[in-house]
Amino acid sequence: MAKSPEEQHPQKAFGWAARDSSGVLSPFNFSRRANGDNDITLKVLYCGICRSDLHSIKNEFGMSIYPMVPGHEIVGIVTQVGKNVKKFKVGDKAGVGCLVGSCRSCDSCAQDLENYCSKMIVTFMAVDKDGTRTYGGYSNMLVVDEHFGINFPNDIPLDAAAPLLCAGITMYSPMKYFGLCTPDMHLGIVGLGGLGHLGVKFAKAFGMKVTVISTSISKKKEAIEQLGVDEFLISKDPQQMQAAAGTLDGIIDTVSATHPLLPLLGLLKNHGKLVMVGVTEKPLELPAFALLGGRKLIAGSMIGGIKETQEMVDFAAKHRITADIEVIQIDYVNTAMERLLKGDVKYRFVIDVANSLKSSLKSS
Amino acid sequence: MAKSPEEQHPQKAFGWAARDSSGVLSPFNFSRRANGDNDITLKVLYCGICRSDLHSIKNEFGMSIYPMVPGHEIVGIVTQVGKNVKKFKVGDKAGVGCLVGSCRSCDSCAQDLENYCSKMIVTFMAVDKDGTRTYGGYSNMLVVDEHFGINFPNDIPLDAAAPLLCAGITMYSPMKYFGLCTPDMHLGIVGLGGLGHLGVKFAKAFGMKVTVISTSISKKKEAIEQLGVDEFLISKDPQQMQAAAGTLDGIIDTVSATHPLLPLLGLLKNHGKLVMVGVTEKPLELPAFALLGGRKLIAGSMIGGIKETQEMVDFAAKHRITADIEVIQIDYVNTAMERLLKGDVKYRFVIDVANSLKSSLKSS
Repeated sequence: MAKSPEEQHPQKAFGWAARDSSGVLSPFNFSRRANGDNDITLKVLYCGICRSDLHSIKNEFGMSIYPMVPGHEIVGIVTQVGKNVKKFKVGDKAGVGCLVGSCRSCDSCAQDLENYCSKMIVTFMAVDKDGTRTYGGYSNMLVVDEHFGINFPNDIPLDAAAPLLCAGITMYSPMKYFGLCTPDMHLGIVGLGGLGHLGVKFAKAFGMKVTVISTSISKKKEAIEQLGVDEFLISKDPQQMQAAAGTLDGIIDTVSATHPLLPLLGLLKNHGKLVMVGVTEKPLELPAFALLGGRKLIAGSMIGGIKETQEMVDFAAKHRITADIEVIQIDYVNTAMERLLKGDVKYRFVIDVANSLKSSLKSS
Repeated sequence: MAKSPEEQHPQKAFGWAARDSSGVLSPFNFSRRANGDNDITLKVLYCGICRSDLHSIKNEFGMSIYPMVPGHEIVGIVTQVGKNVKKFKVGDKAGVGCLVGSCRSCDSCAQDLENYCSKMIVTFMAVDKDGTRTYGGYSNMLVVDEHFGINFPNDIPLDAAAPLLCAGITMYSPMKYFGLCTPDMHLGIVGLGGLGHLGVKFAKAFGMKVTVISTSISKKKEAIEQLGVDEFLISKDPQQMQAAAGTLDGIIDTVSATHPLLPLLGLLKNHGKLVMVGVTEKPLELPAFALLGGRKLIAGSMIGGIKETQEMVDFAAKHRITADIEVIQIDYVNTAMERLLKGDVKYRFVIDVANSLKSSLKSS
């Protein structure tokens, strides 16, 4: 018989888990593997709440497995290092994002694109190399191969930096790959949430002009005054959209609800690029003529590789880019999920794990 | 009152025109402008029949204006040159493709991308700079600004080379722009018609491995034996498609009927590119997850600029690439259109204009 999550591994661990598709999170005892020769063990300090945590705990993609400890924007302090570890020493600040493993031998891995490895192991709800399940960062500690750890500089605030590990790299990677990162360019960002607001910050650091495209005017003032957004378009206003037609070199579309692509393609200049980073449940309608007429493209991008994630964190530290966050205690997490569903956060919840997660282990 | 097509210009011309959405072509008298200082006049020798001629004569896109003289794969002999003309002299072989004008001053024109100029003037059914309508190559002669003329080398057979001017450049341009033109690559081509078979020839000349994806097995033997296609997939066979999953670096999709994109995206490797060159009447279904998971892209491309068209013709001449054609007389053109509708041609009809188009002008 398979061992229980509590008994599988030698290191006792605790966190909060969802038990079924109600998505309600509650205290959960489990275990982590012993720190291997290539591993680091992390005491978790902060963990961001990604929208995909919400999708996953509620089984919105029909692939969830319970109990599930979400969380893949994890920062903490290294407490153990294996004998082969080179990147970290005990006491270092380190982060773990969406990935904790990959095959390390395929073309994608050879190109530092572990995020496109067909055998990648995501940080929670995946089957790890030893056959046990992965549990995420809503927990007190984590063991991970050092390859998948990210070095965090000392001068970056760890709570506000945590969302860089998913939201940040999800925006940064396509900007770099699709060449949407030079000062002569005008970038559109659809949706001003956790991803979108970091996209704005990277784009401004690259020296770009930035237009936010949103369904709601409520975030306009703050977007312009606080984030330095140059223009703010209401996607449901055909006049505004028409007036901005053909002005953008590229668009990063963060929206995961079904939405029309034609108005977005209309905003692009010839040869412009619309990159989607949010997955919609239903297929979108693609009017082919809108691509042909201006040699436009629609692409997808999914997080980023480990090397690029490190580059992005270093870039963020240099340019003092962190997320705008609302720090919460772990016992507020279910309320935070309800608010996230309504988009009621500017712009990312981050759980203060170390100061609010209480041990649910029996004293031994 | 506006002058009739016969009286608008000083040079008498004749051809075959469609008069209404029945699409039936019949003899038509009209006129061409006097040869201007920057113009060349062409005696038309051959004109290819493009599928868009068929769409246009039948008003399938709802934008047709009659009478319409189709034809934008035009080759002939230069009979007049204006005093400023530098590219041509009388007696030269020359071609005219889809474009006879553009603004010459916008960003697109400055980058030799007249095909994406918002003021481009297409070879038939457009309003020319002087306000009169453009008439295409199913006619005895043509006057065009030399900028839009293509030099044809002496050693290329003009009949089989005519389809290069639309079908050829439509395939060549995206292969170059999207970097799908190097020997280490494996290219898929969807649809083996006028465009597709030229795409195969260019890809083989680039040294690529080529897979054709077709709905019908009927062209398989010839594709492999005559065109040198490496693999031939039946798109409706899920087993074949599954076995080829993740093998292609890029796909050029020539199909203008509505068709599913998901199986095509599945054939692409990570970071692969699906380029559409055919316009479908209805929007296609775009499953976003299929783009994100492998950072894939879907793009559109539309013919090519004049500079690149010249480059393509020179490349074709060097590599002895021409279309496989069925040469017809002009009075067979209505039958040819019926056969084209059924896909019954390998692979392009070309009208022998000079030898079959009889003058319908009154003797004066």
